[in-house]
Amino acid sequence: MLNKRGFASDNNSGVHPKILKRFEEINNGHTIGYGDDIYTQEAIEIIKKNFGQQTEVFFVYNGTAANTLALKAITHSYNSIICAETSHMNVDECGAPEKFTGCKLLSLSTDNGKLTIEKIKYHLHDFGFEHHAQPKVISITQTTELGTVYTIKEIKKITSYAHKNGLLVHMDGARLYNAAVSLNVSLQEITSDAGIDVLSFGSTKNGGMFGEAILFFDKKLAENFKYYRKQGMQLHSKMRYLSSQFAVMLTDELWRKNAAHANKMAKVLYEKVKKIPEITVTQKVETNGIFAIIPEDIIEKLQSEYFFYIWDEAKSEVRWMTSFDTTENDIANFVDKLINLLRKTLINSKVI
Amino acid sequence: MLNKRGFASDNNSGVHPKILKRFEEINNGHTIGYGDDIYTQEAIEIIKKNFGQQTEVFFVYNGTAANTLALKAITHSYNSIICAETSHMNVDECGAPEKFTGCKLLSLSTDNGKLTIEKIKYHLHDFGFEHHAQPKVISITQTTELGTVYTIKEIKKITSYAHKNGLLVHMDGARLYNAAVSLNVSLQEITSDAGIDVLSFGSTKNGGMFGEAILFFDKKLAENFKYYRKQGMQLHSKMRYLSSQFAVMLTDELWRKNAAHANKMAKVLYEKVKKIPEITVTQKVETNGIFAIIPEDIIEKLQSEYFFYIWDEAKSEVRWMTSFDTTENDIANFVDKLINLLRKTLINSKVI
Amino acid sequence: MLNKRGFASDNNSGVHPKILKRFEEINNGHTIGYGDDIYTQEAIEIIKKNFGQQTEVFFVYNGTAANTLALKAITHSYNSIICAETSHMNVDECGAPEKFTGCKLLSLSTDNGKLTIEKIKYHLHDFGFEHHAQPKVISITQTTELGTVYTIKEIKKITSYAHKNGLLVHMDGARLYNAAVSLNVSLQEITSDAGIDVLSFGSTKNGGMFGEAILFFDKKLAENFKYYRKQGMQLHSKMRYLSSQFAVMLTDELWRKNAAHANKMAKVLYEKVKKIPEITVTQKVETNGIFAIIPEDIIEKLQSEYFFYIWDEAKSEVRWMTSFDTTENDIANFVDKLINLLRKTLINSKVI
Amino acid sequence: MLNKRGFASDNNSGVHPKILKRFEEINNGHTIGYGDDIYTQEAIEIIKKNFGQQTEVFFVYNGTAANTLALKAITHSYNSIICAETSHMNVDECGAPEKFTGCKLLSLSTDNGKLTIEKIKYHLHDFGFEHHAQPKVISITQTTELGTVYTIKEIKKITSYAHKNGLLVHMDGARLYNAAVSLNVSLQEITSDAGIDVLSFGSTKNGGMFGEAILFFDKKLAENFKYYRKQGMQLHSKMRYLSSQFAVMLTDELWRKNAAHANKMAKVLYEKVKKIPEITVTQKVETNGIFAIIPEDIIEKLQSEYFFYIWDEAKSEVRWMTSFDTTENDIANFVDKLINLLRKTLINSKVI
Repeated sequence: MLNKRGFASDNNSGVHPKILKRFEEINNGHTIGYGDDIYTQEAIEIIKKNFGQQTEVFFVYNGTAANTLALKAITHSYNSIICAETSHMNVDECGAPEKFTGCKLLSLSTDNGKLTIEKIKYHLHDFGFEHHAQPKVISITQTTELGTVYTIKEIKKITSYAHKNGLLVHMDGARLYNAAVSLNVSLQEITSDAGIDVLSFGSTKNGGMFGEAILFFDKKLAENFKYYRKQGMQLHSKMRYLSSQFAVMLTDELWRKNAAHANKMAKVLYEKVKKIPEITVTQKVETNGIFAIIPEDIIEKLQSEYFFYIWDEAKSEVRWMTSFDTTENDIANFVDKLINLLRKTLINSKVI
Repeated sequence: MLNKRGFASDNNSGVHPKILKRFEEINNGHTIGYGDDIYTQEAIEIIKKNFGQQTEVFFVYNGTAANTLALKAITHSYNSIICAETSHMNVDECGAPEKFTGCKLLSLSTDNGKLTIEKIKYHLHDFGFEHHAQPKVISITQTTELGTVYTIKEIKKITSYAHKNGLLVHMDGARLYNAAVSLNVSLQEITSDAGIDVLSFGSTKNGGMFGEAILFFDKKLAENFKYYRKQGMQLHSKMRYLSSQFAVMLTDELWRKNAAHANKMAKVLYEKVKKIPEITVTQKVETNGIFAIIPEDIIEKLQSEYFFYIWDEAKSEVRWMTSFDTTENDIANFVDKLINLLRKTLINSKVI
Repeated sequence: MLNKRGFASDNNSGVHPKILKRFEEINNGHTIGYGDDIYTQEAIEIIKKNFGQQTEVFFVYNGTAANTLALKAITHSYNSIICAETSHMNVDECGAPEKFTGCKLLSLSTDNGKLTIEKIKYHLHDFGFEHHAQPKVISITQTTELGTVYTIKEIKKITSYAHKNGLLVHMDGARLYNAAVSLNVSLQEITSDAGIDVLSFGSTKNGGMFGEAILFFDKKLAENFKYYRKQGMQLHSKMRYLSSQFAVMLTDELWRKNAAHANKMAKVLYEKVKKIPEITVTQKVETNGIFAIIPEDIIEKLQSEYFFYIWDEAKSEVRWMTSFDTTENDIANFVDKLINLLRKTLINSKVI
Repeated sequence: MLNKRGFASDNNSGVHPKILKRFEEINNGHTIGYGDDIYTQEAIEIIKKNFGQQTEVFFVYNGTAANTLALKAITHSYNSIICAETSHMNVDECGAPEKFTGCKLLSLSTDNGKLTIEKIKYHLHDFGFEHHAQPKVISITQTTELGTVYTIKEIKKITSYAHKNGLLVHMDGARLYNAAVSLNVSLQEITSDAGIDVLSFGSTKNGGMFGEAILFFDKKLAENFKYYRKQGMQLHSKMRYLSSQFAVMLTDELWRKNAAHANKMAKVLYEKVKKIPEITVTQKVETNGIFAIIPEDIIEKLQSEYFFYIWDEAKSEVRWMTSFDTTENDIANFVDKLINLLRKTLINSKVI
């Protein structure tokens, strides 16, 4: 049976065939559980090659867990965490960070999903005053939830400001690959080299099946982390099947091919829709997401064939995500459908 | 590369080939994430067929999460949870239940991992007295952590006692399959039909790759559960790959074949070792685990070829687990090695 | 030894003499602890007389606990709580609500500390969508942290809107007395009669020594609350000394005399400072607090004799609170000092 | 109105008159809230004199909070805490420690409420094994909940064993005064000098009104504690009234007079009841509590005039507590009543 194709999210896609192939290869005999196996060791080594030898690597199940446990590792319950209002941890994790860390999230509204020092400053006060939750972490998302990308310079500004003020910087890298492609840099350059302290390192959205990693770039921060992972219900028994996905993704830069393709598909789509007068693209298309205001009355009809999310109902703004397996054909068909619907609506409205 | 084989745990085994095959079949196109897909629907339907149509099904990542979130769903933070001292939730989850539910675990020592009403009574008092955590859940493990099995009658005694006293019964079914085989009954007979309220339904130890399910046999208990799952960091995006494993396992009773084989292998091993005078088997061999006291000086040498866990160092008691992929050859070789080591030790000790 | 006098907070004041007198009267013999005593019964009765017979009353130690436990009683951990950005629970409780409830606080910026339906709407969306914390409570502060007061009509608008949307309304009434005086209404009219579901009922700031109460106006909401109070470390053993303070405060409307005096003193102060051109009062003076922008260079000198808090350093905005024991003399001296300092500064600046 | 007198608990007593007198003296003018006042400074100084100059002092509201927050300060959520099964934190705090710390409590059954190294050893294993909650704290109660007392030597054995194993020792000193009197030592000798790391220092049961203190004997352990206190809802605003109670209690050893009297009254009661053949005293009477098995049929009648608690219903064991204000008359009357009831029962039973 064939599944439909759509633009709802890069996690609606399937799994890259190389991963399934790898599963076949390693699916024999017994290995010690919970990460003490050679495949996990191999995955850790290749991750270190990509992010720096000092990196401490822990695998967990998903992005919400990666964010939440990373924050738990570097906070006390009386701390606060500064993030963009649109950040996944603030909006899409059903309060997991608050529940597991006990911390307060201090959100900041932005135009493009990106924090700046000017904005962050608003929450930096009353250090040492016990009545106030104490700011400890700045969390930024790369690629942001709005598809935009922090430049290396922008990241460094934030990390150096944070460190000067005794704060740490967490990066939610659920779509880190797409940002690295967009900036044409290595994974290390936009993370550890840019001063990031802890990274939620995602792979699922770029062709993985399950599993994300938490990367600490300072060993001290990871000291007791293995206990938090277990207590956080995130230690996998048959670890080889989780960790090996990362080895596959980082071998011969498969990640880059996948992400580059997804980004390219977004550009292709963008080039087509930007010419349509009834459509306004609202964010820079720097990676694999397009945010656009489209006529309200075509949304439902378009969704009936290609599922995607309404981003902001009030503004009739939608989100279209491309992924590693999106084809030019998918896009051509989608745009056809889109134009077709717009034309009908146009005719209807003229008639009226 | 070929992995070694051992008796450490049934989760050291690989994944059943039918699951990998299923992954290939469903690995095309896009499906809506987080469970709104046909494969997940299919998995839920077959689970309902096996456990009763009133069953509410939620997939999570692992057994610790299944236990912890199941408990969260049916407790307030001021409740207490009664369990065996040897239970996984009490010993092997690094305090996950306490952290996520806020509840107190009240453990009871047992000889064979099984709770009885007589033991449970010890903790049932001071209902309504606000100074004491209020007992709300009895949790039993089927198959127990000691490889033993509750009969249907034993379960019913506990569930009817619990319900009479306003408590609920949770079953940790990480190895439910093995118990059902041991008792030669259906999955439903030892769970919903026996009065269980909530089940942690495991599959990984019987040939799955990742993922467990939480089954509520009373819809009311599941009312808000989807939020706890998300907040508990246990909602998988590419759900089809998790849920479909359950469909495979329950189709044509694959689960029964796998578990029956594992149980049989344990019996084979048991028949061999029970004849060895230096070895004392300490628990009834009802499923796929053997607990045995063996001479301390051979443990390390034996482990160097076949990994397994020391269960109780003070008593020189070890645990050997068989799994769906254990072969008669594995056992023959293992017992050879074992006898060989014992003989050497014997000779050594005679010489001395 | 005599303590200084100042305008830092109404909780810098002492205890009303009638309370100390009451302590003497009840300080004999033994009473059952934890609230099963006649003084606590008496206090509960008089509270019911003031708030309605359906009221359920629980005493706790302080305002942070009253807010936090009230919220715990009416939320699940996956809920969110909507409040003003300036609210005590959001700013001055070091994350206690997040830690104990697990919920997310959704704050809203306001000009005067008061929420409106228009603002609240911003956070009311995605009901039933498990990725988002589910809005459950609107919390308003009466008197607000900015000294302003919700009219009965304003409260009713919020409560009826909340109830229509399946939400509950909590009121932080740390300074409820001052608001009731300001509006010249009964305590009941601005709480239970106005649709409030749960009230943090403060007394300390109006002449009490320790202890606040949580009032549920719907018995069902209070069902299991006694356990949360105990688990929340808020059950006092020698309860008579806590509860009797409420009886004293509510007898012959002592509360009204105290709060009326405090409010009046603020008005007196306001009348004097509003004439000073270098001073800008920034909020309506409706109760016992004055917020004013004053020249930065006199703040420290003024504080050296009369302690008060800087509210917003960036704006050189300060807060002056009057209390039940503030005298007209205190104010006259304070204003003298203030004018004196302003004159000196003026001269200095002229010279330069 | 005069309250009855009983033997339910030392917290059923009133407040020592010197404390009420002190309240009158300090009840004037304004002091900075939350502990930055001279009375609190004075209290801290006198506490340091009694426990050692390195002591860090924090005031909280009650014993449950003192225990819970002390544990929070010295644990991570993945730790376990070893305590006696009868300990207040295990039995009488409604799960507050688990809820606030996230830790697992590992209880040990004892005959007399006292832990020993031999017992503690049972829980010390699997350090570094992430599946198990990691033991971090041993908590002992002095005076124990069974009225017994640890000798200095016994305490030192536990603390040196703990420190050798990387654990810390917490002491629940809700009735520390009574133990110090019983052993005829200073407060310091049985706490900081004996190797205790953190103390819950109670005063309420010995004549205080409200408030306990947490004493850290190693500054490092207290580093961030002020935030936990605030987040734990335990920071009092009008602190002078809480802290000054400790100053009163420690001035001229008022604590010793009070506790010595309470202990003496227990001895007086013990001398009388031990001669009654129908009564079996079950614990050594070392402080101010008597545990005794008495005929079941007189309990209710006796309670109707003198309230006290049934300790163990199954054994018909009751607890009688004396306090600083118990009089010889109280005891004489109580014993009269007791004997009277026994006689009646005796006659009745003979008749039957």
